[in-house]
Amino acid sequence: LIKNGTSSVQSSSPPSQSRFFLPTEGVMLPIGAFNNKVAFITGGGTGLGRAMTNTLSQLGAQCVIASRKLDVLQQAAKEISSQTGNKVHAVQCDIRDPEAVSCCVDQMETLTGLPDVIINNAAGNFVCPSAHLSPNAWKSITDIVLNGTAFVTLELGKRLIQNQKGASFLAITTIYAESGSGFVVPSASAKAGVEALYKSLAGEWGRYGHRFNIIQPGPIKTKGAFSRLDPTGEFEKLMINRMPVGRLGKPAEIANLAAYLSSDFATWMSGAVIRFDGGEYVFMAGEFNHLQDVSPDQWKMMEAKIRSTKGS
Amino acid sequence: LIKNGTSSVQSSSPPSQSRFFLPTEGVMLPIGAFNNKVAFITGGGTGLGRAMTNTLSQLGAQCVIASRKLDVLQQAAKEISSQTGNKVHAVQCDIRDPEAVSCCVDQMETLTGLPDVIINNAAGNFVCPSAHLSPNAWKSITDIVLNGTAFVTLELGKRLIQNQKGASFLAITTIYAESGSGFVVPSASAKAGVEALYKSLAGEWGRYGHRFNIIQPGPIKTKGAFSRLDPTGEFEKLMINRMPVGRLGKPAEIANLAAYLSSDFATWMSGAVIRFDGGEYVFMAGEFNHLQDVSPDQWKMMEAKIRSTKGS
Amino acid sequence: LIKNGTSSVQSSSPPSQSRFFLPTEGVMLPIGAFNNKVAFITGGGTGLGRAMTNTLSQLGAQCVIASRKLDVLQQAAKEISSQTGNKVHAVQCDIRDPEAVSCCVDQMETLTGLPDVIINNAAGNFVCPSAHLSPNAWKSITDIVLNGTAFVTLELGKRLIQNQKGASFLAITTIYAESGSGFVVPSASAKAGVEALYKSLAGEWGRYGHRFNIIQPGPIKTKGAFSRLDPTGEFEKLMINRMPVGRLGKPAEIANLAAYLSSDFATWMSGAVIRFDGGEYVFMAGEFNHLQDVSPDQWKMMEAKIRSTKGS
Amino acid sequence: LIKNGTSSVQSSSPPSQSRFFLPTEGVMLPIGAFNNKVAFITGGGTGLGRAMTNTLSQLGAQCVIASRKLDVLQQAAKEISSQTGNKVHAVQCDIRDPEAVSCCVDQMETLTGLPDVIINNAAGNFVCPSAHLSPNAWKSITDIVLNGTAFVTLELGKRLIQNQKGASFLAITTIYAESGSGFVVPSASAKAGVEALYKSLAGEWGRYGHRFNIIQPGPIKTKGAFSRLDPTGEFEKLMINRMPVGRLGKPAEIANLAAYLSSDFATWMSGAVIRFDGGEYVFMAGEFNHLQDVSPDQWKMMEAKIRSTKGS
Ligand SMILES: NC(=O)c1ccc[n+]([C@@H]2O[C@H](COP(=O)([O-])OP(=O)(O)OC[C@H]3O[C@@H](n4cnc5c(N)ncnc54)[C@H](OP(=O)(O)O)[C@@H]3O)[C@@H](O)[C@H]2O)c1
Ligand SMILES: NC(=O)c1ccc[n+]([C@@H]2O[C@H](COP(=O)([O-])OP(=O)(O)OC[C@H]3O[C@@H](n4cnc5c(N)ncnc54)[C@H](OP(=O)(O)O)[C@@H]3O)[C@@H](O)[C@H]2O)c1
Ligand SMILES: NC(=O)c1ccc[n+]([C@@H]2O[C@H](COP(=O)([O-])OP(=O)(O)OC[C@H]3O[C@@H](n4cnc5c(N)ncnc54)[C@H](OP(=O)(O)O)[C@@H]3O)[C@@H](O)[C@H]2O)c1
Ligand SMILES: NC(=O)c1ccc[n+]([C@@H]2O[C@H](COP(=O)([O-])OP(=O)(O)OC[C@H]3O[C@@H](n4cnc5c(N)ncnc54)[C@H](OP(=O)(O)O)[C@@H]3O)[C@@H](O)[C@H]2O)c1
Repeated sequence: LIKNGTSSVQSSSPPSQSRFFLPTEGVMLPIGAFNNKVAFITGGGTGLGRAMTNTLSQLGAQCVIASRKLDVLQQAAKEISSQTGNKVHAVQCDIRDPEAVSCCVDQMETLTGLPDVIINNAAGNFVCPSAHLSPNAWKSITDIVLNGTAFVTLELGKRLIQNQKGASFLAITTIYAESGSGFVVPSASAKAGVEALYKSLAGEWGRYGHRFNIIQPGPIKTKGAFSRLDPTGEFEKLMINRMPVGRLGKPAEIANLAAYLSSDFATWMSGAVIRFDGGEYVFMAGEFNHLQDVSPDQWKMMEAKIRSTKGS
Repeated sequence: LIKNGTSSVQSSSPPSQSRFFLPTEGVMLPIGAFNNKVAFITGGGTGLGRAMTNTLSQLGAQCVIASRKLDVLQQAAKEISSQTGNKVHAVQCDIRDPEAVSCCVDQMETLTGLPDVIINNAAGNFVCPSAHLSPNAWKSITDIVLNGTAFVTLELGKRLIQNQKGASFLAITTIYAESGSGFVVPSASAKAGVEALYKSLAGEWGRYGHRFNIIQPGPIKTKGAFSRLDPTGEFEKLMINRMPVGRLGKPAEIANLAAYLSSDFATWMSGAVIRFDGGEYVFMAGEFNHLQDVSPDQWKMMEAKIRSTKGS
Repeated sequence: LIKNGTSSVQSSSPPSQSRFFLPTEGVMLPIGAFNNKVAFITGGGTGLGRAMTNTLSQLGAQCVIASRKLDVLQQAAKEISSQTGNKVHAVQCDIRDPEAVSCCVDQMETLTGLPDVIINNAAGNFVCPSAHLSPNAWKSITDIVLNGTAFVTLELGKRLIQNQKGASFLAITTIYAESGSGFVVPSASAKAGVEALYKSLAGEWGRYGHRFNIIQPGPIKTKGAFSRLDPTGEFEKLMINRMPVGRLGKPAEIANLAAYLSSDFATWMSGAVIRFDGGEYVFMAGEFNHLQDVSPDQWKMMEAKIRSTKGS
Repeated sequence: LIKNGTSSVQSSSPPSQSRFFLPTEGVMLPIGAFNNKVAFITGGGTGLGRAMTNTLSQLGAQCVIASRKLDVLQQAAKEISSQTGNKVHAVQCDIRDPEAVSCCVDQMETLTGLPDVIINNAAGNFVCPSAHLSPNAWKSITDIVLNGTAFVTLELGKRLIQNQKGASFLAITTIYAESGSGFVVPSASAKAGVEALYKSLAGEWGRYGHRFNIIQPGPIKTKGAFSRLDPTGEFEKLMINRMPVGRLGKPAEIANLAAYLSSDFATWMSGAVIRFDGGEYVFMAGEFNHLQDVSPDQWKMMEAKIRSTKGS
């Protein structure tokens, strides 16, 4: 009766409902929404971080992007800046190293002053059976994702507090931070840690003018994520087929959400955790959603059987 | 590479790991743990309610079971009582009707006095595409599950408060109360309502000596549930195959958990929501758990690809 | 050492950090974002519903607002329409009554055609000790909030499906839908039910082109909510004082969020539950947040004590 | 009207409802429930870990307890063993160090063979404003709680898998792992990470015969926890006063719950997260629970005001 718990895994065209959910990739916020603001984006040279940087820059922000690969950052900074006309600064920083973080913030203070907007987006991840994980493999992920995010957040937070400057902090986690997931366990644990960090500070540091919010993305195609989570490319179709909206997300879509959350339109938002995943999570988690593969005729039969049942 | 997101749906024998998770169906709590206690169980004549009644009765409780079908209740009461040697009373009650509920509690007061233990277990459910639901179909479920539970809980609560008597309340909901699920939507909504009711009263009515807890069962084979949720019997295998412990639950297992939660060993437990589902929920919800179908050789290939990836 | 678990309840001026979190009440989305779209808003004549109608209308939507009081709706429709230049239709409808809902949708089909945007915002609520709740009081809230939302959603959903038309559904719930709360128990239960309904349909009805999302607001001053939740006005200060951002929300702020979620910028968002509450929830829920009342000197003392502790 | 959001902070006697919730500290499970089983408990020499060891030992388990202080472990082992008549082994191990963990498991293999029951209970914590946290302070907690738990879990998991041996894993986290909390932020983050680790492995490692569950305790008085979380002793009363059951938990109570979860009575439980906190969490999180301080007369006034309100 049903084939496999997700409909039409065989089909090669995207689910037809995707026509109802076409992406809008233009910038959403009013031009100038980030004028005179400084934004700091970790991992801002690639993938989602780059898309968010691009959007904030278009909206008037002066951006500072930081990660390990200076050449990648510089290239991205140049390209974005040339498109938007606003400055983008590239600062090398390995966020696992507290001294590197401190030094990076020093540089930012000189370049732009302390930021109004912080996006903790840098991360590492790869699929792996947990029984293959060495302690070093475990740490290779959690050191970036959890410790790195904490070092950046604490360093910036302390300096902002000292300067009595408010700021919006945003962390990019993942839908499986909440549920957990096999085969990406260090990432799941570290991202869950990041969520607790942000919810905690939303409660504790409001008094200093700081807001903390979280986006949990579902699958959005970037080289960084997909080459390590779906190296053979075979799972993309499976993911699309269980996505209620029938398609993957686009970097520009999360960039608009991130810009909103970081903007003055969202000053009342703090401590929020926003799932952004085309409905994938609720579809997977719902115990009877596999019934979407039951055909109308089969439903008739099932409903007749149910009606004829008496008692318990 | 992967077949279908759940391993070996084809196989007809249960997953081999089930040998590690054999059920223990004997009574867990010390004999006499419910001596001199009165327990009230809605839907106590069938399925899980009957199993819980049986266990509480074995442990010394005097039980009152209530639902619509008096003959079913009386038969169950007789059988349980003859096995355990403790009284079981059958009281007819349609919990959708507040007057019937009040009248049922009157009878209980006469028969046994007010209860020490309340288990809101009665419910209705059937699978159905939501687009087929009429307003009456919607209400046929929510009136039992949400309103019925509320009427029973409020009626008993008020009388217990007036009599300054403490009590343990337990509600049986479902794993999809939290996530939602298609095809069982009235049940999902009503059960989510019951969970909020119980968490709310755990906070509000502790001062009156009342505790409120919740069990969210996964699939446990009973005629009532399975005839309306899997009328053709085709989905049982699918459920078992995605169950980390490789088997369905047994009524006696939930009965032991319910007895614990209702006992004096759990007087410090209130406001808890306990998923009891063989791991089904976390398996379904975890975004990368479909990778369990990847073979060791394929993992080698994937890991090699990941290692050879450079940059983002 | 600490006074009361929330800082400076005595002070009459708002917490000083509110200066960092000034509201932005102008419209966020690009002009015309809802051109050629029809929006249906229940309870659109007052409070938050009116603010959302106003924003959607400004952005180009043709709006239909529905609730019981036709005069209130008509007055609101006239005022909004005269400001925005776009049509706003008032349709009387008691959402508790499935026939009234069906008749309301008939009228809308004639007036505007089926909607692209649906906002289930109508609700009822009042504070009350649960031990005072009669079955009728229970139903007076749950019939509006849960059944009313379900009737509207199912009726519109079915017709949209028949017409192969996609739509965005948004429900307005509350932060205590998740945690539960004493003294507003029917509302907590019904809103939790609404959340499960929306998460369920996000999974089930994506294939028909429908998205479902939820906003959980914290306290935003409206006559409807505050007159029944804080009738004497004494709790407002307490709420503000435990709000990390130090102020209540503004209707225009939730209107911007609702417009975003209902817009084509959010076509990849479905099944999301967005807390929008100035950080109130995470502050309340965090077990050690009462330590915000500890003074710097007292911290020194406490930290010294901790450092001098040896062993466990 | 209300004093402070938690009732009668002034009173020095425990809330009167605590008489309804007296603890039961005797052992719950049937004698011999853990005969022929080996249990490994980190931090088993003190506090909750010791109580759990004691209970498992009474029930027939051979226990191995591990932490940094060998003298403390040996003393505890001797005392427990002399009471229960079953062997308790003390093994020194700093769980932050993967080699120490591996060496500890080597020793256990020699002493007892691989365990059937694993309880990850060791942790570190202290209250501290987040703005005072150095990177080292952050790591001093997360290295124990998150990395330590992961190293123990992965090491044991791999060896159990190789030996095709099933096991029950239990982690002790905290109620603020889910909500986050200020002033204990490294602990909140690390414990949230542990929860994701356990939920993930519940999905991934069921096939190897492993179950994974979590207890989130509220405040249970132990020297280790209270000396670092309430060094001056002033907050205990506040916590008790917001506890619906009106008292702190007892080590023996969590030991009974842990024994149940680790026993064959719970073979169908996996991926569960069990809050065990006297109702504290739901009380704190519920937005209107402060109304418990409203007196009956004041309720009359408030209800009259609400009734007289017309419209929205
Ligand atoms: N794409 C998705 O489907 C998806 C889904 C869920 C969550 N996410 C999250 O979204 C975020 C962005 O991911 P993405 O898809 O855009 O992948 P990506 O392009 O690989 O982004 C990761 C970024 O992190 C930086 N980074 C890694 N280690 C670092 C370190 N030690 N110090 C500083 N920076 C470091 C990388 O730059 P360097 O190599 O130069 O250091 C890179 O720019 C991540 O947090 C990811 O977990 C993505
Ligand atoms: N079995 C599972 O896999 C499973 C999974 C998740 C949750 N649950 C929950 O577990 C509970 C028990 O289910 P079950 O599997 O044991 O099914 P069941 O045997 O059908 O139990 C339902 C009981 O509810 C009673 N009931 C129904 N409507 C009632 C009404 N209006 N007034 C009073 N009593 C009424 C029924 O008795 P009458 O017909 O005599 O009224 C029946 O005894 C339910 O809450 C169910 O939602 C079960
Ligand atoms: N304001 C807050 O702080 C806050 C916080 C959390 C959640 N919320 C939620 O936000 C939404 C709007 O609340 P609000 O503050 O704007 O209060 P409000 O002005 O009282 O809004 C409630 C609306 O619901 C309509 N309504 C009530 N019963 C109805 C029925 N049977 N059929 C049709 N419409 C009905 C009312 O109109 P008629 O009287 O004309 O029917 C009214 O327009 C509600 O869902 C509320 O629960 C508000
Ligand atoms: N008591 C509460 O109210 C409460 C509430 C919520 C959660 N909890 C949790 O319950 C658990 C037990 O806490 P407790 O109250 O019993 O406090 P505790 O007595 O201080 O227990 C902590 C144990 O962890 C061990 N430990 C610390 N660092 C270690 C390391 N690096 N390697 C190995 N072992 C280490 C300690 O032993 P050594 O010093 O010998 O290493 C000690 O035995 C903890 O996970 C705690 O977070 C307790």
